[in-house]
Amino acid sequence: MARINQNYLKLPGSYLFSTIAKRVKAYEEAHPEAKIIRLGIGDVTQPIAPEVISSLHTAVDEMGKAETFRGYAPDLGYAFLREKIAKQDFQARGCDISPDEIFVSDGAKCDCGNIQEIFGLDNKIAVCDPVYPVYVDSNVMAGRTGAYDEASGRFEGVIYMPCTEENGFSPELPDEVPDLIYLCFPNNPTGAVISKDKLQAWVDYANEHDSVILYDAAYEAYITEENVPHSIYECKGAKDCAIEFRSFSKTAGFTGLRLGYTVIPKDLKTGGEELWPLWARRHGTKYNGAPYIVQRAGETVYSEKGRREITEQIKYYLENARIIREGLIAAGYQASGGVNAPYIWLKAPDNLTSWEFFDRLLDEANIVGTPGSGFGPHGEHYFRLTAFGSRENTIRAMERITKL
Amino acid sequence: MARINQNYLKLPGSYLFSTIAKRVKAYEEAHPEAKIIRLGIGDVTQPIAPEVISSLHTAVDEMGKAETFRGYAPDLGYAFLREKIAKQDFQARGCDISPDEIFVSDGAKCDCGNIQEIFGLDNKIAVCDPVYPVYVDSNVMAGRTGAYDEASGRFEGVIYMPCTEENGFSPELPDEVPDLIYLCFPNNPTGAVISKDKLQAWVDYANEHDSVILYDAAYEAYITEENVPHSIYECKGAKDCAIEFRSFSKTAGFTGLRLGYTVIPKDLKTGGEELWPLWARRHGTKYNGAPYIVQRAGETVYSEKGRREITEQIKYYLENARIIREGLIAAGYQASGGVNAPYIWLKAPDNLTSWEFFDRLLDEANIVGTPGSGFGPHGEHYFRLTAFGSRENTIRAMERITKL
Repeated sequence: MARINQNYLKLPGSYLFSTIAKRVKAYEEAHPEAKIIRLGIGDVTQPIAPEVISSLHTAVDEMGKAETFRGYAPDLGYAFLREKIAKQDFQARGCDISPDEIFVSDGAKCDCGNIQEIFGLDNKIAVCDPVYPVYVDSNVMAGRTGAYDEASGRFEGVIYMPCTEENGFSPELPDEVPDLIYLCFPNNPTGAVISKDKLQAWVDYANEHDSVILYDAAYEAYITEENVPHSIYECKGAKDCAIEFRSFSKTAGFTGLRLGYTVIPKDLKTGGEELWPLWARRHGTKYNGAPYIVQRAGETVYSEKGRREITEQIKYYLENARIIREGLIAAGYQASGGVNAPYIWLKAPDNLTSWEFFDRLLDEANIVGTPGSGFGPHGEHYFRLTAFGSRENTIRAMERITKL
Repeated sequence: MARINQNYLKLPGSYLFSTIAKRVKAYEEAHPEAKIIRLGIGDVTQPIAPEVISSLHTAVDEMGKAETFRGYAPDLGYAFLREKIAKQDFQARGCDISPDEIFVSDGAKCDCGNIQEIFGLDNKIAVCDPVYPVYVDSNVMAGRTGAYDEASGRFEGVIYMPCTEENGFSPELPDEVPDLIYLCFPNNPTGAVISKDKLQAWVDYANEHDSVILYDAAYEAYITEENVPHSIYECKGAKDCAIEFRSFSKTAGFTGLRLGYTVIPKDLKTGGEELWPLWARRHGTKYNGAPYIVQRAGETVYSEKGRREITEQIKYYLENARIIREGLIAAGYQASGGVNAPYIWLKAPDNLTSWEFFDRLLDEANIVGTPGSGFGPHGEHYFRLTAFGSRENTIRAMERITKL
């Protein structure tokens, strides 16, 4: 008799953003007249940049002619894209990453979710609390955790690293040594960043204890301040302990196009075993590459004109972030983030729980945000708003919140 | 200390097609003058159909305008595509499959590789021998098998179901009852099909023993003969025991565009647990949807004009298949398949092993094929050729083989 993976039953509900989508849909059906503004899910709203659109058209035409048609992509992704990535995202910042250490994929979510497969089930993971739910959920599904404890909102066997107002939403080095450490900076959901010194301390800690850091830098393009690392490979020794994830979703508005990549240095070993060949094996066996046309679109993001256009989009979203952040503070909210990240993290008023505030905001202001508790127990009483709306909606949303 | 997933070390080499690609590359570098014809990997060569190209351009333009831009796709895929699939691929054949039972993805390879995750590690799998390597490899990686035995070419703990000339390359019901049964018809690599009666016997067997059938119908569009089922849901009771995988790769030449889908009936339970919510949870947590533009391209495959164009392409490849099959038989080879499938399965001459014949064919005729032993121990001494080349190359390849 076939038996299901019982670990799935440990998960308390559906994936956070699926739950929100269902709840909003139900509200909309009950209130068809409501003009809902969505600042919840981190989905962009600006169209794909003109230069990228133009390269997509060119690539589509290539697919329509026998001489230029492309079938299966090379295992790691097209060299034309990996070379640009290595040069502009890493070598230009003094990080010694080569094109062969880059695995192109259809997005950081898949890579962050799948990376745990190359590690044994006996590894203990550490995560920031609160944090993007994919890290914990994918490990629960694999069986790397114990049961969910309703009271604490935690899974047994996971090291939760509280990110609080007190520590500036940047976790302390844990007493219990984890095997795998998930870090995400600029952070989702808090919008906090980590200084280069502090990240170096994490790299040193990982190298000292033979831990592996899984570094999610999906929001790197939003960094505006000095001394904030764009890549973990800016730290000494990171090639011996860290894997990095990147995404085109927020950098170039590719949430609906799907493109990302993972960096696994060839030197990276754990227990004497190289990780690069394991991920290569997984990539080759269970994945078949991002579409050629999307890889060409990704290449264009690195062209001079493409770069200029996406920089404008990022500035646009960062201006939204400023409007939200300053608007919230002016309205008496406690709010942070939004300076080096598209996310603003605020405390729910009147000691409301995150979901109570979600309901109030949806009901009284027709605004969708994301309950902080969905990101972990230390997210309770907090709330995430995103800067990915249109300027008009962002301003309107702040007017409504101010009136509340 | 981080520890790797030791199961990966059980795999004897790199993924079959990665190995072949490396070997061909080495040969090309040593013989730059050689005019190599590739009939190895199952990659198409005909360009994307004009109607599909046109819909891609339209969708790309939508992505470039704020009013029509699309970000994250719905979890299961866009309804416009799932509705067409349900109607034309299933309801039109009398299969009661609804759009909500269809999960759109970036290809059957990923889905076939990932599906095992929703089942416990204690399930015993059965596979055809020879077969598409993803089924076994993904289960090895997950730890659902024992060690690899060099002598037999088998993994411990897997039920191998021999597909031989004697049984028409269609396996017998196994004595030991498997929990999960992988079936692929039309078959990769043998090109064999299964009759409706015989598939019904498998469905009855699975229902009797509470096994789940994982049915890969990626080559369904190549079926030309009557009484060959296009979907397992043509069999009575299949909705209680079967998951089906489909691909646009070979149907519409999407190997470089990436689109496929998985059908999980809502009724499907094992041990009292529904499978649909588990796959929905996996899909929502570890995947982020196929690109909007590619889903629109997929929709166009179901339009009248799109359907007509891709039917012509399939006919083209099937004519290649006929040329290869008849050419091989005329040249004295023992060959089968190629009537309801794009694959021709032949026996290596002179009692050569599959890899010896691979080398001879590459060296003496500059033709790349796929060694049958790469698909399982019963594939030894066999060889796979694909019909996905151009007509010109196919004819030239047959001339070279005839001369050998």
